[in-house]
Amino acid sequence: MDYNKKSLDLHKKTRGKIEIRSKVKLKTKDDLSLAYTPGVAEVCREIAKDINNSWTLTNRANQVAIVSDGTAILGLGHLGPEAAMPVMEGKAIIFKEFAGIDAIPLCINTTVPDEIVKFCVMIESSFAGINLEDISAPRCFEILEKLENQLSIPVFHDDQDGTAIVVLAALINACRVTGKVMRELKVVVNGAGAAGIAISKLLLEQQVENLILLDSAGAIYEGRSDMNRFKIEIAKTTNKQNIHGSLREVIIGADVFIGVSKANLVDQAMVKSMNPRPIIFAMANPTPEIMPDEAYAAGAAIVGTGRSDLLNQINNALVFPGIFRGLLDGRIQKATSKMKIAAAIAIAYSVKPKKDKILPSVLDKKVVKAISQVLIKNKK
Amino acid sequence: MDYNKKSLDLHKKTRGKIEIRSKVKLKTKDDLSLAYTPGVAEVCREIAKDINNSWTLTNRANQVAIVSDGTAILGLGHLGPEAAMPVMEGKAIIFKEFAGIDAIPLCINTTVPDEIVKFCVMIESSFAGINLEDISAPRCFEILEKLENQLSIPVFHDDQDGTAIVVLAALINACRVTGKVMRELKVVVNGAGAAGIAISKLLLEQQVENLILLDSAGAIYEGRSDMNRFKIEIAKTTNKQNIHGSLREVIIGADVFIGVSKANLVDQAMVKSMNPRPIIFAMANPTPEIMPDEAYAAGAAIVGTGRSDLLNQINNALVFPGIFRGLLDGRIQKATSKMKIAAAIAIAYSVKPKKDKILPSVLDKKVVKAISQVLIKNKK
Repeated sequence: MDYNKKSLDLHKKTRGKIEIRSKVKLKTKDDLSLAYTPGVAEVCREIAKDINNSWTLTNRANQVAIVSDGTAILGLGHLGPEAAMPVMEGKAIIFKEFAGIDAIPLCINTTVPDEIVKFCVMIESSFAGINLEDISAPRCFEILEKLENQLSIPVFHDDQDGTAIVVLAALINACRVTGKVMRELKVVVNGAGAAGIAISKLLLEQQVENLILLDSAGAIYEGRSDMNRFKIEIAKTTNKQNIHGSLREVIIGADVFIGVSKANLVDQAMVKSMNPRPIIFAMANPTPEIMPDEAYAAGAAIVGTGRSDLLNQINNALVFPGIFRGLLDGRIQKATSKMKIAAAIAIAYSVKPKKDKILPSVLDKKVVKAISQVLIKNKK
Repeated sequence: MDYNKKSLDLHKKTRGKIEIRSKVKLKTKDDLSLAYTPGVAEVCREIAKDINNSWTLTNRANQVAIVSDGTAILGLGHLGPEAAMPVMEGKAIIFKEFAGIDAIPLCINTTVPDEIVKFCVMIESSFAGINLEDISAPRCFEILEKLENQLSIPVFHDDQDGTAIVVLAALINACRVTGKVMRELKVVVNGAGAAGIAISKLLLEQQVENLILLDSAGAIYEGRSDMNRFKIEIAKTTNKQNIHGSLREVIIGADVFIGVSKANLVDQAMVKSMNPRPIIFAMANPTPEIMPDEAYAAGAAIVGTGRSDLLNQINNALVFPGIFRGLLDGRIQKATSKMKIAAAIAIAYSVKPKKDKILPSVLDKKVVKAISQVLIKNKK
């Protein structure tokens, strides 16, 4: 199927994917007097008396802002805020369809971290949560850190934690299918952006002990020059044998390859150089690091990608609706590591895994419920 | 009818008035592949190639932001951004019901003019227009001025121009009903905030010659001390006889009273001191300067208020849906004075006026069409 042309046609026809709807009728003068003036004045006064009333008298409690600056759109890079909108509208309709959440895409015309932080602080009064999206690293780390300190509503950077959670879930099930043991694995993560760093951190918190993270300059190790403070930090807990080298060198003898980098970076020779029956998560978007058929032909036991049109989709679309449903319903201010791990386990154990189905379908609405319930349970 | 309690009950039951809906279906993997990855990548690339494609491939062309800082909510004053939301959600559903526009309420947590300007500049990429709302004067004048210079999409402060247009329309028809002549009228406008100043300016551009504007310190005249630059400016073209004094003094001998101030400022003695059969627009929200029955008993020929539950509602809800429909469909960057006057005339002449019906109903969808058409015609 030619998704590119078909998708373009769909967008031309519908002129975007979201719309606003009214939850109340507006047919008579009385309807207007209740939804608008004079009746609405009393509702305003009730909220002015106690701001907490905004959670019950407006749509705020069910409302999330999707904020992007368009600097890291899918795997396409920095295309600007206007070009980010189709992705954000796509997320908004997934939010609504799978979690019943009203998500509003706000693609903003600045790339200055402090301006993005200020923007989110300004809109806090209108929302119950903020989903940061497609903001490039390392700016996204700094922005998330500052917002977690300044906001009283939850903020979640899906490219970091959403991806980390779904990868952990996929790895748990890949181990269940292959009989591999998490703490014995040599894991290679290629790409030290938002996703790569968050994946590495979460796997290290959940049994993985031997993990090497690479950026475009090769393996990240303690003492390497030219690293930002986030890479310096992660170098302390990864790559304990202090291995140097390129992906082609580092991947030798690995059990797991996790790619959050660029198209076609992995070839069959590299897969063959890994330990027997390796696990390959080639998640570059829209084109993976290696196509599944090639990887299987080279001996891979399990292959997953980020795409909806291939088997074993490992995509944060499986995660963010449930995470936000839980954050909102539980009035949770921050998704902790414990919650993230619990969410990954909930996703993994919501399916009986097979080689070609290590994760539940993105269309499976039970997953949203499973995730939101463990979040709320782990709050207590 | 007890609108206060009924409105509160409605808001408690629905928990707000808006929601997001999807314009595309999302039931299968193929649906996901077209609305989201991988297909959406091509849509992003098309917009990156030419930003103008954001008008046809996303919902932007039909999307307006309603921005408020909650400093001047209805006639209630500065209650903060959370308390402003019920009004903004009300406007959003009026936008949708009467003009088919998707308006997104953004109540923001700052009152600093330059931060509000910066906020609007940041969101420009996601919207086709910005509706400023319930921002107190004189800050709103400064904000509007700066935004008109910095934005390439239209910005409209409804409390200024929306109110001015509907008042001009009401005055045109009040003259038709009473046989009074616009250029012979002595008009007194009480309240020199957003609405009062905009009303005064627009009436002066459309035949009114004798107009006195008052603030809480009394008549505004050239050379009065303690005036902001907007009052100094308007003093040059109003009150040519340089009259000083309170509302009670200035209203003597007037033909028209326009109140955009506070509840109960006008009594029957004041109405009786006006010229015979005066026109009274008592538009303070939610309680007018004088109730219609009192004003009629004191000799008024025509009385209007801002309320949905009284006859002769003079409310900008009659204006903003049509104005934005026209701005959006005509890709108009700024509503000029010529367009505003044409809109007022279109509203006035869309009804055969009577004493108790000087304006079409807010529920009359033909008005939206009439306004948007004259805007587009006056662009050419």
